[in-house]
Amino acid sequence: PASKSGSNPGITEFVGTAIGDTIGLVIANVDPMLHQKMKLDPKYRSIGILGARTGAGPHIMAADEAVKATNTEIVAVELARDTKGGAGHGSLIIFGAEEVSDARRAIEVALKELNRTFGDVYGNDAGHIELQYTARASYAVNKAFGAPLGKAFGLIVGAPAAIGVLMSDVAVKTANVELVAYSSPANGTSFSNEVILMVTGDSGAVRQSVTAAREVGKKLLEAMAGPAPSSTTPYI
Amino acid sequence: PASKSGSNPGITEFVGTAIGDTIGLVIANVDPMLHQKMKLDPKYRSIGILGARTGAGPHIMAADEAVKATNTEIVAVELARDTKGGAGHGSLIIFGAEEVSDARRAIEVALKELNRTFGDVYGNDAGHIELQYTARASYAVNKAFGAPLGKAFGLIVGAPAAIGVLMSDVAVKTANVELVAYSSPANGTSFSNEVILMVTGDSGAVRQSVTAAREVGKKLLEAMAGPAPSSTTPYI
Amino acid sequence: PASKSGSNPGITEFVGTAIGDTIGLVIANVDPMLHQKMKLDPKYRSIGILGARTGAGPHIMAADEAVKATNTEIVAVELARDTKGGAGHGSLIIFGAEEVSDARRAIEVALKELNRTFGDVYGNDAGHIELQYTARASYAVNKAFGAPLGKAFGLIVGAPAAIGVLMSDVAVKTANVELVAYSSPANGTSFSNEVILMVTGDSGAVRQSVTAAREVGKKLLEAMAGPAPSSTTPYI
Repeated sequence: PASKSGSNPGITEFVGTAIGDTIGLVIANVDPMLHQKMKLDPKYRSIGILGARTGAGPHIMAADEAVKATNTEIVAVELARDTKGGAGHGSLIIFGAEEVSDARRAIEVALKELNRTFGDVYGNDAGHIELQYTARASYAVNKAFGAPLGKAFGLIVGAPAAIGVLMSDVAVKTANVELVAYSSPANGTSFSNEVILMVTGDSGAVRQSVTAAREVGKKLLEAMAGPAPSSTTPYI
Repeated sequence: PASKSGSNPGITEFVGTAIGDTIGLVIANVDPMLHQKMKLDPKYRSIGILGARTGAGPHIMAADEAVKATNTEIVAVELARDTKGGAGHGSLIIFGAEEVSDARRAIEVALKELNRTFGDVYGNDAGHIELQYTARASYAVNKAFGAPLGKAFGLIVGAPAAIGVLMSDVAVKTANVELVAYSSPANGTSFSNEVILMVTGDSGAVRQSVTAAREVGKKLLEAMAGPAPSSTTPYI
Repeated sequence: PASKSGSNPGITEFVGTAIGDTIGLVIANVDPMLHQKMKLDPKYRSIGILGARTGAGPHIMAADEAVKATNTEIVAVELARDTKGGAGHGSLIIFGAEEVSDARRAIEVALKELNRTFGDVYGNDAGHIELQYTARASYAVNKAFGAPLGKAFGLIVGAPAAIGVLMSDVAVKTANVELVAYSSPANGTSFSNEVILMVTGDSGAVRQSVTAAREVGKKLLEAMAGPAPSSTTPYI
């Protein structure tokens, strides 16, 4: 889907909208009772909220850049089973901050990054594939995927899940990478129809692994239901 | 969606249909083997069955009125991840009764109430918000949400979940209410893309809390994707 | 949906596509690191992969025939919450084999069987019902449902779940069958909006049980939203 314009609702807490039915919000002082129910760290009175109907990988990668650029921490990453009838996840990501200006800046950075991080999401009527790559994983990627901080990280997703199995095999055979995790419909996802592989290692190897998986995944998806274009513009 | 007419299938157990792809059924004497597998209380040989593709809150509130009006008990409330590509839940609610006439009456009452309880469900292409209010919670609300019996109760739902976070904060800041529970995609939902807040307290405060959350939620949803009309007619 | 033609992507591992956005793949030598992450039995270096956006019952029944016909084992059956906005499951089934030719043959058999096993899946805008029957359950049915090997087996599914409750009651009252399992949105499904009954016993009784449930289920579904045709051609 194309990026949403989103009209300003005249609410202080509203930051903006983005592709994937994404909305970005901030709360300057979270109500103490709610703060406790949300199990937030007491040191953060302000939060940034990034939520979407479609997409979790793109949002986690965008949040990773936001954390690098601001004085915030990722305090929660939750994956809904969504994508509006698609095979994947929606997401809810909460940033903690001592100052609301930091929370707002984090959400602004994340919303802006989404156009890039949707670049290697390819879809058609049968499903989707998603690839993500960073030369240096930060705290959002670490929190969400358990990837080592400061190292290259690659995310490889195929849906229906069968495609993700073959993409995973190609990814690990192509280059000398380490496996961080392997998720499937019944293990590690919110029952999404995806197989998700997470790899780390030397940046060149991770990139090679991801691009090889992309090639085979795209061919399989297109064999099922024709052209599977990028959601925006490929970045890897 | 508009209320479904539903043709009579000529089956004794059929009671009727309603909005949300809802169907109401009764079984006069549940088969003993099935009765055991369903873990029903042996004292109830009859059951009423209320199920829907779209909606859980509206059905639980409708069931609450049905329990008040009949000699039945809520024996199960199960939430599917459904809404036909939407962000929320479908539902399966089972009433236990000693007499099938009681079970049938409960289903009739619940089916009729649904037109009202869908009144504060507002939706558009980006998601939905839902508000529910009762001055006196009964056994269905208690069973499903853990709300105290006989007290005012309010339900506040926002989808995508990010909207529900801000609605929750507004709700608890607006009036002096107590929190019953807070659910999110990874905690307390069936991986729906919702944040759900449940509040109790003085009836005026609960109502004020719910209507304030409605106002901000509707603005946010409409900022994402334009007008978000009521599914029927607002009642709160 | 009609059977997909599927163009050949020119990938050795590709076997074919089928109804339900199904894809069949093989891997001759699973990468050792991935093999371990997937928790495969070390004796199987080759795997067959059967995955679909729509359907789990049809795929498990098809896999059951594939296992009977080949030298393979079912090593995993995972159910996604999918069906592209529908009320049910998608699936990922992994066959283990010592030789890739066996894995490929299993996938070929399964893909071919799907046209039959979708025969008693009936759907309309409100939901679906599904019936399956075999005179002799094999290892896929045993693995997925816990059904006894070599005995007749019947699967009864209704969605929305309320329909499945009444279908289940009719099924067990109609004939002298034993219950294998009863699943519902919150127990035994991946939060699908289904009630699923599994029965075993004398083959005549199982068949009678299944066809009686089909009759009532179809009437209820059609009372909700009009004609609910077979996905292909009924086989029971």
